Amino acid sequence: MSKTIITISREFGSGGRYIGEQVAKRLGFSYYDKDIIARVAEETGFAPEFIEERGEYASRAGIFAYAFESRDRTGASMADYLYSVQSRIILDITDKGPCVIVGRGSDYILRERPEAMHVFICGDEKAKLERIVRLYNKSESEAAKLMKDTDKKRSINHRYYTDLEWGKAQNYTMSLNSSAVGIERCVDIISELAKKL
Amino acid sequence: MSKTIITISREFGSGGRYIGEQVAKRLGFSYYDKDIIARVAEETGFAPEFIEERGEYASRAGIFAYAFESRDRTGASMADYLYSVQSRIILDITDKGPCVIVGRGSDYILRERPEAMHVFICGDEKAKLERIVRLYNKSESEAAKLMKDTDKKRSINHRYYTDLEWGKAQNYTMSLNSSAVGIERCVDIISELAKKL
Repeated sequence: MSKTIITISREFGSGGRYIGEQVAKRLGFSYYDKDIIARVAEETGFAPEFIEERGEYASRAGIFAYAFESRDRTGASMADYLYSVQSRIILDITDKGPCVIVGRGSDYILRERPEAMHVFICGDEKAKLERIVRLYNKSESEAAKLMKDTDKKRSINHRYYTDLEWGKAQNYTMSLNSSAVGIERCVDIISELAKKL
Repeated sequence: MSKTIITISREFGSGGRYIGEQVAKRLGFSYYDKDIIARVAEETGFAPEFIEERGEYASRAGIFAYAFESRDRTGASMADYLYSVQSRIILDITDKGPCVIVGRGSDYILRERPEAMHVFICGDEKAKLERIVRLYNKSESEAAKLMKDTDKKRSINHRYYTDLEWGKAQNYTMSLNSSAVGIERCVDIISELAKKL
């Protein structure tokens, strides 16, 4: 037995996306991340940037934004519609063979699948900041704001759609602090575990 | 380099204590758990059962219990006193050589130690219940209540003394779901990681 679906949820700046790519390469799995956004865009006609914000991040930052969001006659908002298209695309992807999926709520959408393993990657503030400054070419204060805002949106969105707490160990098969464990060693551990489970 | 201190925090019924014992055996480290309670009892004169409740669990279940707790003239409650003795004993232990410490707030007390690695063990409700029923000879409903109460107390106590959320991936080097990963494989992963870090 081995796991053929690996979902990776991650804090911004933790290197989770890179880890996901490397795990996919190591195991010979397909890798999905931004591709999902492109497919949702194609299917719905919305701009990828808009979907990127809406699909993974909070559709409503709070109850007031929620109240004023436009809704169709069934009561479903546009964000719900995007989320449902994205969910279907993620389910389709898993029919195509072994894969690693980073973000996009894949941990929750695939939570009942016995062949799936769910990983959360976090990191120390300092290490994440350094990574964001380096990779996104930001000042330290810009990086700090971007990190805080992105994780806050991910957390709110996760809670809204799943009613589960983002980053809580109980919701994942394994969680790793990439600053303490090391990025390459995270790749090793996840790849090995996927083969053994 | 390798880690010479491993702290294990765990949900009740997750097998975290057993995992800690096995990791210690595997690595040839000392193992501490109930021993700490005995040492606090010896030093303070309080009964071990009392310390077990007070040291790891909530000193005050809520603000009302807190308000009525007896305090000395410095404002420190007895629970704070027990916690401080326990903290000192845990620090003493780590001077004696490589060790695995399960619970007792050791993750927080040793959080700044570069030679320490912090692990959280959680599990699925069903598997934890089965384990509690089997090991503690309880009915399923008794086990469910015991599990809920114990984890709630651990969570409240952790938040009270550390201001950090118990079971949040960010607060540990690694978190493992023992039901998904398997108890023996948790032992393997933790032991291997401790040697490599």
